[in-house]
Amino acid sequence: MGALRRKLARAGLSGLLVTHLPDVRYLCGFTGSSAALAVTRRSARMFTDGRYTTQAAAEVKAAQVEIVGRGPAISAVQWMAAQAGAETAGFDPARTTVAELTRLKEALPARLRRTFLTPVPAPLVETLRLVKDEDELRILREAALMGCRLFDHMLGFLRPGLMEVEVAAELEHQARLMGAEGMSFDTIVASGPRSALPHGRATAARLPRRGFLTLDFGIIHEGYCSDMTRTVYLGTAKPKERQAYEAVLAAQESAVAAVTAGVKCGEVDEAARAVLRDAGLADAFTHSTGHGVGLEIHEAPRVGAGQATRLQAGMVVTIEPGIYLEGEFGIRIEDMVAVTRHGGQVLTPSPKALIEL
Amino acid sequence: MGALRRKLARAGLSGLLVTHLPDVRYLCGFTGSSAALAVTRRSARMFTDGRYTTQAAAEVKAAQVEIVGRGPAISAVQWMAAQAGAETAGFDPARTTVAELTRLKEALPARLRRTFLTPVPAPLVETLRLVKDEDELRILREAALMGCRLFDHMLGFLRPGLMEVEVAAELEHQARLMGAEGMSFDTIVASGPRSALPHGRATAARLPRRGFLTLDFGIIHEGYCSDMTRTVYLGTAKPKERQAYEAVLAAQESAVAAVTAGVKCGEVDEAARAVLRDAGLADAFTHSTGHGVGLEIHEAPRVGAGQATRLQAGMVVTIEPGIYLEGEFGIRIEDMVAVTRHGGQVLTPSPKALIEL
Repeated sequence: MGALRRKLARAGLSGLLVTHLPDVRYLCGFTGSSAALAVTRRSARMFTDGRYTTQAAAEVKAAQVEIVGRGPAISAVQWMAAQAGAETAGFDPARTTVAELTRLKEALPARLRRTFLTPVPAPLVETLRLVKDEDELRILREAALMGCRLFDHMLGFLRPGLMEVEVAAELEHQARLMGAEGMSFDTIVASGPRSALPHGRATAARLPRRGFLTLDFGIIHEGYCSDMTRTVYLGTAKPKERQAYEAVLAAQESAVAAVTAGVKCGEVDEAARAVLRDAGLADAFTHSTGHGVGLEIHEAPRVGAGQATRLQAGMVVTIEPGIYLEGEFGIRIEDMVAVTRHGGQVLTPSPKALIEL
Repeated sequence: MGALRRKLARAGLSGLLVTHLPDVRYLCGFTGSSAALAVTRRSARMFTDGRYTTQAAAEVKAAQVEIVGRGPAISAVQWMAAQAGAETAGFDPARTTVAELTRLKEALPARLRRTFLTPVPAPLVETLRLVKDEDELRILREAALMGCRLFDHMLGFLRPGLMEVEVAAELEHQARLMGAEGMSFDTIVASGPRSALPHGRATAARLPRRGFLTLDFGIIHEGYCSDMTRTVYLGTAKPKERQAYEAVLAAQESAVAAVTAGVKCGEVDEAARAVLRDAGLADAFTHSTGHGVGLEIHEAPRVGAGQATRLQAGMVVTIEPGIYLEGEFGIRIEDMVAVTRHGGQVLTPSPKALIEL
């Protein structure tokens, strides 16, 4: 909260309305599904509804709690407006809908309606969340290692003839038994020609006797997300398939090696893209190289072409180039990487050389 | 699309920007995670990115597909603005952020910037989605019955000493093996005093020898969500606990009996609330009676106090009163109910009399 208050003072705001739930959790620890947090220069108050009375009392730190009957955001704004000397409160225009802003303004006293709510130019809380502290890094490391243990378990489970959904079921079941709070996104299990779908959720398709299998999955541990992808081969890969795999792996390792504090995200993306371009696979790499990961599975920074944001020590990003050849196959390899002053630290050290099962 | 085009004509709009993904799926079948659909009075075009080339070609019906490098919503708005005679396009202010609206306006030619994008007064697509057609009802019925089979399976699995997360793991594993695409929300397993948390996700807590256990879960089947809750008792319930259970059950059955086309949602809520009031439990019922369910786990209508929306045949709502006594226990019973002209049809016919395990 201290760092946020300094940002408020610098921006000349009396307070800030925080409605994005991962931001609320980050600032005060509340994990419920309905809440708004009002942060002023002197105090902070979180508003939620009667379903969360007990949970809020147990979880919320560094803010008072008020249980309200109507929308928590309206209550938060009215509370800030009622503070002595309150003139303006920031809101995040990227997290506030046009309809919600109208409702919030209508709930204010007439004299404040036009001037009180001010869009903040950059998302103040998400900017704080970019750089993880030691405690967050510990949790992300644990989450990532749980992912590696899951992948290791799956290597002993995979065999031709299984349905993709059976693979997802086994993976998610093991994740729960390991203590995961849940999955951080729909598990991707894409086999044979379906591996050419970058986001192929598990279906009733059966694993082939011969072909690629992409597993892209993540678990939630103490609220933080893991994310990793490995592509394995069922049977013995053909020379063209092995070549393609080696190209993706070289691209992935090149981007991992480019990660260090001070480097632009676009340069990391280019490190992967250049390798695939040289291999004649530029057109088959149809997405960005990676993204930040933390309380949300996708958060800033974006590691994409031309991105000027510079990596800072404490950021955690994914590095996940892939190629997709429609009707043939696809390959993606993804690690979570923590940025340090002396390079990138891979948090998902599962093997990456081609595994033939 | 026909019904939507009639709404567009009635509202005097040249077109509509659809960015909420369940709305996109509803209108054209696309299930990817990045898309915008532009619907004009004569045609429709869906914009997505290169990750979804193959998937969009396979899934999208009733719209052309265009793969774009930049934001799909910007492309959709620019495409509509370039149509001959295009003057205005509606957008849903409840699904468009303040920041996104600014970006969309900036992407328009100067002469259209002020006038082209118009907030629609009511969410046009969500209004269409309120009433389910025969095909949707079939899918929701199947999804609900999968939920009932899961509950039946769990009755044979539950025993004191299991961790709540083990219960969630078993339930989710079975769901996958049954062919569920995923869970429609984080599975709630709340045992003993934790049952007093209305939204108690599964933790490492162990099921007690004696006490309530609330299971609230849903699966996704062909894109549609199921949702049901049962509260069972481990051991033999004390008289006070049994009385409380009977009160919640009476409230739930009273609300189910109130469901029929033409009735106001607030009247259904009151049917449950009145029973709990008579039992002296009004303050312990801290949430609404239910909500619509379909492509999203929470959608319109809201079945809450004072809601004036009238139920129509083809709507599907949950009926889920509950009571929460902090430090003691909680009880919730939830069914999915399809509205017909002749009353409500319960889609989740699992037993509701108190089960003691």
